[in-house]
Amino acid sequence: MSAYQDLLAFARQTEALAQISGRLGWDQQTVMPRGANAQRSEEMAALEEVLHARRTDPRLGEWLDQAEAPDEAGAAILRELRRDYARNTKVPARLASELARITPLAQTAWEEARLAGNVSAFLPWLTQMIALRREEGQAIAGGGDPYDALMDDYEPQTSSDTVAATFDRMRPRLVALREAILGADTPPALTGHFAQEGQMRISRRLAEHFGYDFTRGRIDLAVHPFSSGSGDDVRITTRVAVEEPFNCLYSTIHEVGHAAYEQGVDAAYALTPIGRGVSMGVHESQSRIYENQLGRSRAFCGWLYGAMEQEFGALSVADADGFYAAANRVNTGYIRTEADEVQYNLHIMLRFDLERALIRGALEAGDLEEAWNTRFEADFGYPVDRPANGVLQDVHWSVGLFGYFPTYALGNIYAGCLYQTLRADLPDLDAQLSAGDTSAATGWLNARLQKFGALNGPRQTIANACGFDPDEGPLMDYLEAKFTELYKL
Amino acid sequence: MSAYQDLLAFARQTEALAQISGRLGWDQQTVMPRGANAQRSEEMAALEEVLHARRTDPRLGEWLDQAEAPDEAGAAILRELRRDYARNTKVPARLASELARITPLAQTAWEEARLAGNVSAFLPWLTQMIALRREEGQAIAGGGDPYDALMDDYEPQTSSDTVAATFDRMRPRLVALREAILGADTPPALTGHFAQEGQMRISRRLAEHFGYDFTRGRIDLAVHPFSSGSGDDVRITTRVAVEEPFNCLYSTIHEVGHAAYEQGVDAAYALTPIGRGVSMGVHESQSRIYENQLGRSRAFCGWLYGAMEQEFGALSVADADGFYAAANRVNTGYIRTEADEVQYNLHIMLRFDLERALIRGALEAGDLEEAWNTRFEADFGYPVDRPANGVLQDVHWSVGLFGYFPTYALGNIYAGCLYQTLRADLPDLDAQLSAGDTSAATGWLNARLQKFGALNGPRQTIANACGFDPDEGPLMDYLEAKFTELYKL
Repeated sequence: MSAYQDLLAFARQTEALAQISGRLGWDQQTVMPRGANAQRSEEMAALEEVLHARRTDPRLGEWLDQAEAPDEAGAAILRELRRDYARNTKVPARLASELARITPLAQTAWEEARLAGNVSAFLPWLTQMIALRREEGQAIAGGGDPYDALMDDYEPQTSSDTVAATFDRMRPRLVALREAILGADTPPALTGHFAQEGQMRISRRLAEHFGYDFTRGRIDLAVHPFSSGSGDDVRITTRVAVEEPFNCLYSTIHEVGHAAYEQGVDAAYALTPIGRGVSMGVHESQSRIYENQLGRSRAFCGWLYGAMEQEFGALSVADADGFYAAANRVNTGYIRTEADEVQYNLHIMLRFDLERALIRGALEAGDLEEAWNTRFEADFGYPVDRPANGVLQDVHWSVGLFGYFPTYALGNIYAGCLYQTLRADLPDLDAQLSAGDTSAATGWLNARLQKFGALNGPRQTIANACGFDPDEGPLMDYLEAKFTELYKL
Repeated sequence: MSAYQDLLAFARQTEALAQISGRLGWDQQTVMPRGANAQRSEEMAALEEVLHARRTDPRLGEWLDQAEAPDEAGAAILRELRRDYARNTKVPARLASELARITPLAQTAWEEARLAGNVSAFLPWLTQMIALRREEGQAIAGGGDPYDALMDDYEPQTSSDTVAATFDRMRPRLVALREAILGADTPPALTGHFAQEGQMRISRRLAEHFGYDFTRGRIDLAVHPFSSGSGDDVRITTRVAVEEPFNCLYSTIHEVGHAAYEQGVDAAYALTPIGRGVSMGVHESQSRIYENQLGRSRAFCGWLYGAMEQEFGALSVADADGFYAAANRVNTGYIRTEADEVQYNLHIMLRFDLERALIRGALEAGDLEEAWNTRFEADFGYPVDRPANGVLQDVHWSVGLFGYFPTYALGNIYAGCLYQTLRADLPDLDAQLSAGDTSAATGWLNARLQKFGALNGPRQTIANACGFDPDEGPLMDYLEAKFTELYKL
């Protein structure tokens, strides 16, 4: 066997083991008995140790030195493996092990601090986590920017300076749009009691209408909606709030977008490093375009209105237009995960600036709450009322996810670019969506993007699909047009 | 660290990974999307290769040479590890990996062949599986009996010659009892329609009454009932036939027996080689004594009759005595898992002889169906009507379980021994069971057997619990007494 073949066989096994780890994560959040928690920790730690040993195995370095790619896919596989190996071997074992040790403890401390509304109880853990991640970023970056090094794990080939410049261009337009909307008449919300069984029936219909392949997946309930797995076993979860059906329905569509990307990758790439989504930002572009540009469109809302009436009887909104307005309602609120399309990106920008300053050493953990609150009031116009609605609302920092937040906004930006080209290519899109038929749109996304998996880098993947280098323009144009029309601005 | 401590740390991680493998097996048979089969097969093969590498790691041999047990549990751990290491280092990695790869595929082929009634469609898989297992048995046995080598994996310290001799003593008594019963008046069966939800509600009640800990387990539906996992994550499955509620209810009690053993092992042994049931035969002794000696007793049937009336309204049988007779009805039938206590062992003897011949090379896969049908008619007095009622009825051979079947009959034999002592120790047993209270009996089994896990060898485990060396006598006496009374022979 050639070095390339040895390497590929080894990498396939590693990927298969990583899939198992993902499956256990699904199990833990859906079906695992609660008494199994401690045992599961030990099981996961054993599997993580196996995975870490494989990812830093010296044979990988030897194979990578000698391997020659047989074709384009092979070159992409080598690119991904070289990148991962370079990252993994730069992190000292002591640091990796210390991060693994404190992560569950920090998460528990965050959960307790959030419930108690006590930021200072979480502070020692946050300080330690920042120090460790900063050290990790420095180890990977060499003399470069440690925050960029962390972000690169989720979004390769994108510098935080580029992100900051993009966000700087978006912020004034978003703030202006937000102020205009909140100054206009607010449409009525959808109110009523929507039984769990009915919401789950609609969720399944939505998943089918968006092309989710149930023979290679399933939908379950979990506390936090997520998509998990690649290839032929891609499972999603959703959640139900009986008085807020949009929560469940749009969580489902969002996760179907993630799942469609994983299910849609060329089967020839299965269990290779390119047999999955190429980055978190590109992944989020799929979940966002499914959820927002398609799922929250006027046309699709017309179909969904009929499906909801069929399931639940007469609704509190007068007609399909009222339903569309309710599904796109812009509220004042504190929570990122509940934010509308306009304000969501402002939440991300706040976090991006703060976490970049934390990792670069320009902001200390002890000053974070004040920085958050000041910035929130400046961006949103009203003060944070309590830590659970402010600096303690997200799990990310407690588990060391620094550099992850910007990928959510990048996903929105990429979705904007994709949608501009998709609409131009599909003149009958509105008629199709009005009938609940997303197949032309999702088929376009599969053919132009999803099937390639990680064959190309993230920005190249988007550029290939939409035909131009991505920037924030199409997203901002889309948001301004949509909400100007909807709120009669 | 001492060699013993190094060894134990390594073995704990291996056991944790083995638990993951078990969890994936549960997943595959309960919740996995059917399209994920091929991918799962590759994932399982990767994990199996990791496990095989760990179980044959040369460091294990070095540690085992140097390790000194600190106490009785340590000595038992070393005994188990030495036995496993000796076995595993004899099986080539290629063979272990090939077995892991084809097992899910062969199982799927069996399922399809069974539904289609098409033995020849399954034949290539069966042939391959037999060849691989034969090779494995030969590798382990050296010049010895390959079937004994396979059986030793499920039931250490018991030779197939001993089993054959035991079966030879049992067979005439069983055949005579069976003929006498079938010559007597048959009591009415329990007839009617029993909705799935109601059967599952009763199943959950039964599980609770038999001490199943739902905080460390769960019940789901599967094609074939099973129990899976050790320690704090022990899951069971059952199945429902709406016109045959005893199928579901006694499958549940049976699996609860298995699960109680795993949940009941001393927590200090968790994730060690002694933190689980010591052998399949001893395991089956627990499931059988729960299901039969306790669950099918006249006393417990009285309580279950009331619970069934409460759930389903008036039953087709006249009273608790009629219910007891129906629950212990001896039918002419084809299916092992539906067989009564008398005929069950005849089913096992048939399979034991056939699979021993297959592994020893005295019977080829292509001749198996005819051999099965001939033997069945000789033992049971009527011909097999279709493959799903004959050679295709059990999953075992499709997943390579050769040498496993005799452990079911050993379990019955061990259950007979345990029950003889348990009854003598618990004079109020019938009164307790009549009230649906199994706690004294299950508590006795936990204190005398379950909590020790694999601290002692299988026969020693039984002997310690019941106070004498096990043989088939108590089981045969119990069966003859029970059915003579019930059928007025």
